[in-house]
Amino acid sequence: MNFLVLRVIGIVLLANVLIPTGSQAEELLLAQARQFFQPLPKDMATPEFPITPELAELGRVLFFDPRLSLDGTVSCARCHQPSLYGTDALPKSVGVENRPNPRNAPTILNAALQLAAHWYGDRISVEDQAAKSFLGKASFGNPDFASVEAKIKAIPSYEGMFAKAFPGEKDPVTQQNCGRAIGVYERTLVTPSPFDSYLKGDITALSSASKAGLAEFLDTGCSSCHGGIGLGGRNFQKLGIRGDYLLATGGRELDKGRYSVTNDAADMFVFKVPGLRNVYMTPPYFHDGSVGTLSQAIRLMADLQTGRKLSDQQVESMVQFLEALTGELPANFAMPPTLPPAGFQRR
Amino acid sequence: MNFLVLRVIGIVLLANVLIPTGSQAEELLLAQARQFFQPLPKDMATPEFPITPELAELGRVLFFDPRLSLDGTVSCARCHQPSLYGTDALPKSVGVENRPNPRNAPTILNAALQLAAHWYGDRISVEDQAAKSFLGKASFGNPDFASVEAKIKAIPSYEGMFAKAFPGEKDPVTQQNCGRAIGVYERTLVTPSPFDSYLKGDITALSSASKAGLAEFLDTGCSSCHGGIGLGGRNFQKLGIRGDYLLATGGRELDKGRYSVTNDAADMFVFKVPGLRNVYMTPPYFHDGSVGTLSQAIRLMADLQTGRKLSDQQVESMVQFLEALTGELPANFAMPPTLPPAGFQRR
Repeated sequence: MNFLVLRVIGIVLLANVLIPTGSQAEELLLAQARQFFQPLPKDMATPEFPITPELAELGRVLFFDPRLSLDGTVSCARCHQPSLYGTDALPKSVGVENRPNPRNAPTILNAALQLAAHWYGDRISVEDQAAKSFLGKASFGNPDFASVEAKIKAIPSYEGMFAKAFPGEKDPVTQQNCGRAIGVYERTLVTPSPFDSYLKGDITALSSASKAGLAEFLDTGCSSCHGGIGLGGRNFQKLGIRGDYLLATGGRELDKGRYSVTNDAADMFVFKVPGLRNVYMTPPYFHDGSVGTLSQAIRLMADLQTGRKLSDQQVESMVQFLEALTGELPANFAMPPTLPPAGFQRR
Repeated sequence: MNFLVLRVIGIVLLANVLIPTGSQAEELLLAQARQFFQPLPKDMATPEFPITPELAELGRVLFFDPRLSLDGTVSCARCHQPSLYGTDALPKSVGVENRPNPRNAPTILNAALQLAAHWYGDRISVEDQAAKSFLGKASFGNPDFASVEAKIKAIPSYEGMFAKAFPGEKDPVTQQNCGRAIGVYERTLVTPSPFDSYLKGDITALSSASKAGLAEFLDTGCSSCHGGIGLGGRNFQKLGIRGDYLLATGGRELDKGRYSVTNDAADMFVFKVPGLRNVYMTPPYFHDGSVGTLSQAIRLMADLQTGRKLSDQQVESMVQFLEALTGELPANFAMPPTLPPAGFQRR
């Protein structure tokens, strides 16, 4: 082996040390992405809402049980279907007796990451949202919780499940406990995606097209709102900073948004920034479900929120990135539980 | 070894040959059961409706897709939920726009075994039932199949699935083909139960209590109608041979039953005998869903159809037998498919 060969080997080794994987641009993109986004945790437990298997399993059964609604047609899973990635594919959801909901049902997946529940944030947690749904006129429609309690107690197997989920409580079938169980179940519903693998350092987890879309997403400034673990869900924001949403979508129904909660003029047409995980799988989009495709939604947001007119290629590139946010459905959501039959004690 | 010992061994061997497993009474019960019942086949394909994986998978996706209904709220799975063993736990089902159905939704599991579909048999096969549901006023509610076709074609991934399921057909998105795909999917939904293991010779598959219930079921004469593979579903029968159903249940709504299909006076108040597989999991019971518990249903049937008044113990014993007809949910039903999102071509 001569000196020249040794020098060439030396250069190759040196290059490998400086750029251990992929190109410098790739490393820079990952570093930039990590400034804005974080991978999903294994679950969404908090000190206030810790997860126990018994609580999550009770919540799972309650989540799928339509018998707890006024007319027996609505469970949480009616608007948050496993087949549709935790949505119902409707512009606006429909509750008991065909009652229209005021807004689009967002996916339940990763929802517990958000600062509050509902598009205008009138529910402080997923537990709060679930508890109040039992009495929501356009959701479960029950007149009071006593009627829900009676329905639960008519299904004998629930007694043992509540006892296990709330040990030591004398009468655990309460509205708050039902909300807690369902909320805690929802805290288990995380959907790790190729983007999470990427953020953890596997730069091969995203295709070149998806990485180009990520760069486009960052360059356009989307990540200033759609950042964090959930790519959104961290704050409220006016819909239409640089343009008029209703004008752009041809909508005619003025939704006052968070103003309805706070009565603060600054909150007029302000909504929670939705998280973008699984967004590819959950059309239609926005609080009124008025936009049918992701490409339309991207174009509209860039225009109305950042004032940028995107080319078709830029839009398609971002679609490729957002598709990489599609995660695996958690097994305890993909497969609904078997509900205990009414009128019998399961052995 | 002396002669006496050899004789004793000989007798023991002989006894083993005559009664190879369990007692003579046990063997007799199994032999009697086999005269009336047969175990489930691996699927319910027929020469007319053979199963292909592509057809069954298309049918599965169509089965769970609510976007194909008038208002987007009804899929086959709305009335036939995995969580409720292929039923909706309602006395009578509810379709689009909250429209009431005339009768209780029977389980879809093992349904293709039956001689016809619907309580009064106005559908000749599960394929026929599925095809017509798309236009049923109180089910999917579509005004015509052209509107369903438009919905299917607005979801790009369906094109490839139809092409694979119906190779060589130029325009396979037809009402008949949709019915065929869903029906063929349903032909895969069998639920082998402990009773099937028993019928195949494993007499330990049923508990003593279940076997006592089986004997009671046979003695009471239930098996003359509720026989065969499906424990029913083979013929039509008058509801209330020895007594009046409405009087017994306090019902007030006269359902003419099969008379509505045939206009034959002999068919007044005649219904299809329902199959009893998974009956423990699928309350409420009968065509009008007016009976809430299995014990009530058993007592009523013995009284109205055979004229026998059963004791509480006899009823409980039969419940134990019927519970052993609960099978495992098939994996392709227990876990709903992920539906292709509208507006995008899945890669």
